[in-house]
Amino acid sequence: MGVLGSLCGWRLLDYKTEKYVLTRNWWVGALQRVLQLGILGYVIGWSLLLQKGYQEKDSDPRVSVITKLKGVSVAQMEALGSHVWDVADYTKPPQGENVFFLVTNFLATPEQVQGKCPEHPSVPLAPCLADEDCPAGETLSHSHGIKTGKCVPFNSSYQTCEIWGWCPVESGPVPRKPQLLESQNFTLLIKNSITFPKFNFLTANTLETRDGGYFKRCRYHAQASPLCPVFRVGDVVAAAGGDFEDLALLGGVVRIQITWDCDLDRPGSECQPRYSFWLQEKGHNFRAAVRWWRPPGREARSLFKLFGIRFEILVAGQAGKFSVISTGITLGTGMALLGAATFLCDLLLLYVDRQAPFYWGEKYEEVKIPPPFLLSLLPFPLLPSLPLPPPSSTFFPS
Amino acid sequence: MGVLGSLCGWRLLDYKTEKYVLTRNWWVGALQRVLQLGILGYVIGWSLLLQKGYQEKDSDPRVSVITKLKGVSVAQMEALGSHVWDVADYTKPPQGENVFFLVTNFLATPEQVQGKCPEHPSVPLAPCLADEDCPAGETLSHSHGIKTGKCVPFNSSYQTCEIWGWCPVESGPVPRKPQLLESQNFTLLIKNSITFPKFNFLTANTLETRDGGYFKRCRYHAQASPLCPVFRVGDVVAAAGGDFEDLALLGGVVRIQITWDCDLDRPGSECQPRYSFWLQEKGHNFRAAVRWWRPPGREARSLFKLFGIRFEILVAGQAGKFSVISTGITLGTGMALLGAATFLCDLLLLYVDRQAPFYWGEKYEEVKIPPPFLLSLLPFPLLPSLPLPPPSSTFFPS
Amino acid sequence: MGVLGSLCGWRLLDYKTEKYVLTRNWWVGALQRVLQLGILGYVIGWSLLLQKGYQEKDSDPRVSVITKLKGVSVAQMEALGSHVWDVADYTKPPQGENVFFLVTNFLATPEQVQGKCPEHPSVPLAPCLADEDCPAGETLSHSHGIKTGKCVPFNSSYQTCEIWGWCPVESGPVPRKPQLLESQNFTLLIKNSITFPKFNFLTANTLETRDGGYFKRCRYHAQASPLCPVFRVGDVVAAAGGDFEDLALLGGVVRIQITWDCDLDRPGSECQPRYSFWLQEKGHNFRAAVRWWRPPGREARSLFKLFGIRFEILVAGQAGKFSVISTGITLGTGMALLGAATFLCDLLLLYVDRQAPFYWGEKYEEVKIPPPFLLSLLPFPLLPSLPLPPPSSTFFPS
Repeated sequence: MGVLGSLCGWRLLDYKTEKYVLTRNWWVGALQRVLQLGILGYVIGWSLLLQKGYQEKDSDPRVSVITKLKGVSVAQMEALGSHVWDVADYTKPPQGENVFFLVTNFLATPEQVQGKCPEHPSVPLAPCLADEDCPAGETLSHSHGIKTGKCVPFNSSYQTCEIWGWCPVESGPVPRKPQLLESQNFTLLIKNSITFPKFNFLTANTLETRDGGYFKRCRYHAQASPLCPVFRVGDVVAAAGGDFEDLALLGGVVRIQITWDCDLDRPGSECQPRYSFWLQEKGHNFRAAVRWWRPPGREARSLFKLFGIRFEILVAGQAGKFSVISTGITLGTGMALLGAATFLCDLLLLYVDRQAPFYWGEKYEEVKIPPPFLLSLLPFPLLPSLPLPPPSSTFFPS
Repeated sequence: MGVLGSLCGWRLLDYKTEKYVLTRNWWVGALQRVLQLGILGYVIGWSLLLQKGYQEKDSDPRVSVITKLKGVSVAQMEALGSHVWDVADYTKPPQGENVFFLVTNFLATPEQVQGKCPEHPSVPLAPCLADEDCPAGETLSHSHGIKTGKCVPFNSSYQTCEIWGWCPVESGPVPRKPQLLESQNFTLLIKNSITFPKFNFLTANTLETRDGGYFKRCRYHAQASPLCPVFRVGDVVAAAGGDFEDLALLGGVVRIQITWDCDLDRPGSECQPRYSFWLQEKGHNFRAAVRWWRPPGREARSLFKLFGIRFEILVAGQAGKFSVISTGITLGTGMALLGAATFLCDLLLLYVDRQAPFYWGEKYEEVKIPPPFLLSLLPFPLLPSLPLPPPSSTFFPS
Repeated sequence: MGVLGSLCGWRLLDYKTEKYVLTRNWWVGALQRVLQLGILGYVIGWSLLLQKGYQEKDSDPRVSVITKLKGVSVAQMEALGSHVWDVADYTKPPQGENVFFLVTNFLATPEQVQGKCPEHPSVPLAPCLADEDCPAGETLSHSHGIKTGKCVPFNSSYQTCEIWGWCPVESGPVPRKPQLLESQNFTLLIKNSITFPKFNFLTANTLETRDGGYFKRCRYHAQASPLCPVFRVGDVVAAAGGDFEDLALLGGVVRIQITWDCDLDRPGSECQPRYSFWLQEKGHNFRAAVRWWRPPGREARSLFKLFGIRFEILVAGQAGKFSVISTGITLGTGMALLGAATFLCDLLLLYVDRQAPFYWGEKYEEVKIPPPFLLSLLPFPLLPSLPLPPPSSTFFPS
């Protein structure tokens, strides 16, 4: 042993393994097995297999979304007669971004110019009896202009403060029926490409896997054609849980969520999106103006209070691919849990069990430091080849 | 023991626990206790309680932001007289997105048409003495058009190259005083809804928890009403650390950050946003044009160099909810750290302590493989029921 | 021992360390060393040093992007003669956002008004022989208006259904040559600021580290000036792997990726962006209109089918700074892996090795519970000071 022990090369190949104390305490043993089975089931069944813990994940994809609406609709504009709206009229902004607004209803105030006119009676502090009610220069956050200081008749029944601003002011109720109701038959094409930089994997929802013109002819349907990227607007609103006519009247926000969950251990063509639809908000409008110059050199505008549906297209993606390291980390986490289970059982065995003191003594083998004179004989630092007698029979009096 | 040992069912319930060596080495022991207390304090106090390590987190919420500005302002336009601007004039784009631009100052060049005119003297290589200085067809990235090859007088003191483009070219200094200074009194309503998909939890900053009209009447104030989603523009700029008049003159970028930090183990109504404001950039402008057709069929435009504040509204959110698995992982990480502490103490005990050799011999109990003839007698594979004499008294000569 | 043992204060400082069994099984030992070296190399070399596992990461920066295009170009418009386009004409939207569209080609349909005219023959179901082919009121998603029910001549060779909508309808092929080809010489300035909230660190790509006007004069070049934020449009398209003339003809989507990978243990000035370019999509167009009022009070518009390049600027950032806790977690994960290696070697030693049964018996030291009468003598709960004889020589008959 002394000769072999001094061979440093051999000592490096010594194998050290933890020593265990084995007892026949069946209830702690059974508890341990149950805990171990539960943890194994969780780690192997849930973490590793169901959650694909053996895969490295990339959940930060780069995405690109292009949208395109198609369709025409007729609107009845009081002051202007009926009017056909096409895509350049009802989509704002027209660029085909991932957030866009489809006009479904509007309140038009054509041909406003800068000037003086009575404020609308619905504005706070606008109704008046005399000029004193209208402090000149006052402006409030809901008013349409700056008060001139006069009180003038708005119509036969109301008197309101005169303002200076875009005249005439917007008035009249919002139409009771959406003016562009046919927009529910419009189609929306969503082109979405996605890249997972970690795996250098690129795909898109418009890859023509089957026949050539499929994505040209198809319409999305949750069951029949869940991969078709062409959506009927009315279907989207219905799938989001909204009533199109309600939403078209006062506007709303609809979210289209595209979810990619790709297992790159399988063929790339199986990596396909899922579409889901959410009604985010009811009621949405804003004001926009069409401006022009009236000869001679005077600016005019048509003001539109536009009601409609804001579509927000969000893409979330995740891809996974087998990785030794991810597998190791999943298993390592599992082993840490196994250690926690043993720790719990140890507590029971050492402090709760009827024979706890006995187990304590067995698990923790006490050693006494030998008297100094003995240690001084040691050929330090040749640590491992200690010619010491086995402690259990020498220092522990039996 | 032999009979019992062959009962496979019983063996499975054997409880194995690691055997420990216990020593009275007080300084390593004290060090270990200190390290263990530190780690326990970190794991329990910091990770588990303060950082809520017992919760599963969702930090990838789906958010929707709608903004709405209100207010009117007067601007003095040199060529056009004074002019009242309202929301359809000063907000770009008008759709109420989470990034928008509020015009606070501008330089207008009304009624430009395509034609020939002298370039502005401030453009590089524009000033000239003779036609030779102006190569026909040349265009530089800062020029307003394409050089025709002639050198013409710009005004009484300058001669510049003639260009072909939108004429007359933009000229004149930016106004010294912001023309829409009243915009600081405008109000900004931010509607923000947020969904945590992992917990299927949806909330918004406009939920009317108290009285009905609170969110209609209120104004945001950091202390007095930190939950009100209606902001005065001037207050936002001040809270971002900017001076409104400075920023309004040459523009800037202000970020409004909405932070949701929700503990879903508490009532959902306690999940409320915090608003913070940052001045991201000083100086921001762009050019936009209003176009129209001049009879007979000639395009004209008014060019505006618009200065103003770009508001960027960012939402960040995180929600947590109790989860057994997250608790397990936090505790498991803590136990791995405890193991690291023991490993460090072991190193001290085995290599630094004065009695190191002795401890080494105690911790690592050496076993010698028995002579082969003995092993050949073993009733393999009945491994556990080995009729071997205890190794410590047989193979280790005492 | 009994006196000392009852001193609670001392017992707390006992040091417990796991007891190991040491064997001279060289092949399992060698395997363990190889595995340990591999894991150490991975943990120290890869995780800790290369992946900077000793750093806390912040990969959720707040970013702000402002863009600005400069340049002028001439386009030949059939109906309108040649025309100089400047930045207010070819950038949509003009606000300088991180996604914008640069017009490179277009098909103009000037002076459309609402009225009746023949549909374009390329539209499905538009060609007709008699009025019966044109059901009044019908509208399809690709048509330009609503059928009036009449069949009228489109030109000398075609008859199509008459529609009611914006007239005349868009017709004519897309120009074979991009009309704004000079746009490849335009310059794009990208101002990008980035904040890492965890480290309260803010930087930007336009910080003038060297001489004052560097960022004004420079042009981006992958090797010569990789930090210059001013890009020539043609260079960007080339770097993205596209042919500018092709892309300018029918449009496309180009992504500019700005990547910040900052090591905040080094000086902040070394935190600089990298730019990369990707051709995301070929073919991109949309329709936009310029509207005005024709006296007396009739709306007119010029419709443009705009082809061009959509630039999408994406910013991804990560910063790292030394953190004790991150170092601890990286090392802890490594130790868990070391444990897994030992577990694997144990399996080999205990179940595969020729002397497996012997090792099994050594690793798992069996203890028998003492007879109850002996335990009843124990001065419970004074657990540690057990006056029990050492188990190995008493309960295990040798």
